[in-house]
Amino acid sequence: MITEDSLIYLFLDARRNYMVNVGQGTFHTDKGTMDLKQLVGKPWGTAVETNLGVKYFALKPTLHDLCMRVSRQTQIIYPKDGAQILVKSGIGPDSRIIECGGGSAAMTTLMAHFIGPKGRIFVYERDEKFMKNAAKNLTRYGLIDRVEFKNREITPEAEFDETEIDFCMLDSGSPWDLIPAAHKALKGGHRLATICPNAEQMNKFAVTLEEMNYVCVECMELIVREWLARKTKGTRPVQHMASHTGFLVFGTKTV
Amino acid sequence: MITEDSLIYLFLDARRNYMVNVGQGTFHTDKGTMDLKQLVGKPWGTAVETNLGVKYFALKPTLHDLCMRVSRQTQIIYPKDGAQILVKSGIGPDSRIIECGGGSAAMTTLMAHFIGPKGRIFVYERDEKFMKNAAKNLTRYGLIDRVEFKNREITPEAEFDETEIDFCMLDSGSPWDLIPAAHKALKGGHRLATICPNAEQMNKFAVTLEEMNYVCVECMELIVREWLARKTKGTRPVQHMASHTGFLVFGTKTV
Amino acid sequence: MITEDSLIYLFLDARRNYMVNVGQGTFHTDKGTMDLKQLVGKPWGTAVETNLGVKYFALKPTLHDLCMRVSRQTQIIYPKDGAQILVKSGIGPDSRIIECGGGSAAMTTLMAHFIGPKGRIFVYERDEKFMKNAAKNLTRYGLIDRVEFKNREITPEAEFDETEIDFCMLDSGSPWDLIPAAHKALKGGHRLATICPNAEQMNKFAVTLEEMNYVCVECMELIVREWLARKTKGTRPVQHMASHTGFLVFGTKTV
Amino acid sequence: MITEDSLIYLFLDARRNYMVNVGQGTFHTDKGTMDLKQLVGKPWGTAVETNLGVKYFALKPTLHDLCMRVSRQTQIIYPKDGAQILVKSGIGPDSRIIECGGGSAAMTTLMAHFIGPKGRIFVYERDEKFMKNAAKNLTRYGLIDRVEFKNREITPEAEFDETEIDFCMLDSGSPWDLIPAAHKALKGGHRLATICPNAEQMNKFAVTLEEMNYVCVECMELIVREWLARKTKGTRPVQHMASHTGFLVFGTKTV
Repeated sequence: MITEDSLIYLFLDARRNYMVNVGQGTFHTDKGTMDLKQLVGKPWGTAVETNLGVKYFALKPTLHDLCMRVSRQTQIIYPKDGAQILVKSGIGPDSRIIECGGGSAAMTTLMAHFIGPKGRIFVYERDEKFMKNAAKNLTRYGLIDRVEFKNREITPEAEFDETEIDFCMLDSGSPWDLIPAAHKALKGGHRLATICPNAEQMNKFAVTLEEMNYVCVECMELIVREWLARKTKGTRPVQHMASHTGFLVFGTKTV
Repeated sequence: MITEDSLIYLFLDARRNYMVNVGQGTFHTDKGTMDLKQLVGKPWGTAVETNLGVKYFALKPTLHDLCMRVSRQTQIIYPKDGAQILVKSGIGPDSRIIECGGGSAAMTTLMAHFIGPKGRIFVYERDEKFMKNAAKNLTRYGLIDRVEFKNREITPEAEFDETEIDFCMLDSGSPWDLIPAAHKALKGGHRLATICPNAEQMNKFAVTLEEMNYVCVECMELIVREWLARKTKGTRPVQHMASHTGFLVFGTKTV
Repeated sequence: MITEDSLIYLFLDARRNYMVNVGQGTFHTDKGTMDLKQLVGKPWGTAVETNLGVKYFALKPTLHDLCMRVSRQTQIIYPKDGAQILVKSGIGPDSRIIECGGGSAAMTTLMAHFIGPKGRIFVYERDEKFMKNAAKNLTRYGLIDRVEFKNREITPEAEFDETEIDFCMLDSGSPWDLIPAAHKALKGGHRLATICPNAEQMNKFAVTLEEMNYVCVECMELIVREWLARKTKGTRPVQHMASHTGFLVFGTKTV
Repeated sequence: MITEDSLIYLFLDARRNYMVNVGQGTFHTDKGTMDLKQLVGKPWGTAVETNLGVKYFALKPTLHDLCMRVSRQTQIIYPKDGAQILVKSGIGPDSRIIECGGGSAAMTTLMAHFIGPKGRIFVYERDEKFMKNAAKNLTRYGLIDRVEFKNREITPEAEFDETEIDFCMLDSGSPWDLIPAAHKALKGGHRLATICPNAEQMNKFAVTLEEMNYVCVECMELIVREWLARKTKGTRPVQHMASHTGFLVFGTKTV
């Protein structure tokens, strides 16, 4: 049942959908206004009508929805890439993770969800404004207890505070500069990763890992292609797609 | 530290790598024989040498590795697709899931990992041989307690036993036939999904969902393209890739 | 040298570029007005300035430019697909071609260019308005002498007039209906092709060919992905791309 | 009708197919031996039977077939890429082309076909062995009269002999080194192009062009994805595909 505390993915169609808290009460859309509190006690999937008679559905948010709906002050790691990072990172319940460059917490959301209440993510973010926005997103999603923010830069003089880390996610303009610090923090046999827009960055990160005797150094990109399936008009890919979000690089530390 | 109970991803290179239990002791490869027990008490990432002097590394398995290394008696859902399903399924810790057509438990492994010790997956698998193999894989991975197998087919006379389910994963040759049963089992506002090889199957599944007033009906395919990043020889995609594993379809139940 | 008869690809940037005839004299753009006649006697690649001081370059049009710049009253076959059809069609200088469904003459332009002055394309187009537009495009490009238009539909009672044809390009909503007529017109050992938006159409066309003992029945799609190469900012794919234009099907007639 | 001089694409299936001259008489395959001369006077598309009773079809070769079937002593430019180059090069009947790095003449074959008997390609190839192989391929295809070979390297001291060239195709390991020479040979408003395996090469070539005031500098890759269309088993992409052949770069000279 939906409660006053529920976070809802309010859906009309592919363009009109919102992440809302039931407790906020009145909600305005370009198709009219509705009172979200009428949903309290109703089952998930119930429709709520605006004053203009348009029906929105109250859906259970997926991780994908949460990721896409963070309040954004930076580029985000898209959930297609984040999902691949999850399964290739080696993390699981109780993992201890370093994320350097927290952005708007889209990736943090994915990982925090995955590591459970006893896991912990140490987010290093030098921009205080981004950090506060990220923390707000995680608070809204009920995940803030799993995350510890550090508002500083990583330098050769001030590396990561943690050791025996299970996974390092390095997201910065020159992520190879972070590898020596990550190397010290990371457990042997465990992985670090980056995502970067350019081929040259991918190269430099991967080559640096190889020079430091990392194994399973893997570079890849992920492409999601959406399709239309219509009853009488047939099946075909949609006409436009995202061509590129970023290149992923992974490597595993040896000892 | 590695213990006698550790499951290890033993890695030499992209073609020579194995999922092994330290406790099994002697392990044979085409590069010689090694005693895995010498790893006990060593840190993850340690190298172990064969009698021919070749070094393999003892790495922490990722979910991706576990998925790819199930003992296979069927096609598997590849981790790239499984990862996307995870983030778009709406599942999380404690979820209760129906999986119809359990295959070799690659997808079950991903989901079982994700739902934690209090979650539960009800796997319907009509082929007893496949079911036993799947159970063996999950036992090896320490996930069997989260999974309940049912060795039977779903028919209009014998639908799913459960209700108030958080996610249904329908993997069969004609997955649209399973939608009515899944619809009864599924919570409102929650999702079901399939993966299928052919465009016609994708169409039929998606159209059936739309006719049953599902929303957020989404069809897609996921392509992973691997890259080579070499220090002096430059950066380019590898020459060959998997062109196709399957089409994914998702939908959300309304009430 | 550019003459008064030259057709010019007038280029400022990726969004502002035009196919113009020098002889038309004055040309208006959102960056000002210019007199194209000042280009007469100048070398190709010369810049021409508008009254607002913006420089456009007078470039030699490529086949790609001609294709993209036909006056459109229909969907066009994009040059990436058209180019692939050219090299897989078996046509060359002096070929005799049937094109059923002429559209706006983008594909006709490609083929007419390729077959030379002694080749001939018989274009069947039932819509008179489309036919007149196509003819206008071909006239402008100086290719009309190689093309013969027939303003009628193909039916079992009224098939193609020609025989001993080197290639049939069938572009209609149900191209499989045209195969029997094309089969009679086509030389043995030669090819026919279609392009269609949906997977089901591709299937029906390919299966029909196989049932009629065609060999080399090939289905494919072509994806062009554009890249950005910046001096200091690195190399990456552009962010958005066309995901789909159409599926191509080819087959070769046996006797 | 097939004559003793015909070049034939002898086809059994996707793996067993050959480019043969009818005049060579006896031909051996792993499915038996046949006498090709029995095809003389028969229509294209006729089947010829081996002594083991297996039927091969005598098909008209397409440009794609010719390209793929050159005797190879080097990597070739694949016809999918070659086709795109054709339509974006600006060449047509009577064009005069420089090709630097002739390889095995796959691209030369495409272009020679396209420019007609009055066009001309100047191929600079420093490796005499490659040059002889390329010439042999072109002789077999009846295109050698349109091609002039120069067995030498391009250096700052020894640039191209020609001027007023319509298109330069630069295919070498460091194609940017050839740009100054190509620039002198090329007409204004006309294009040059390269194909290269690595992102870094693409970058360097494109950036060099921009620094020399070239316009319409375009970088791209072309992906062909093959599909299976089966009557009862449905429609899907084949499982494996070429992920990468090369990056294409084009630019247009301004004056």
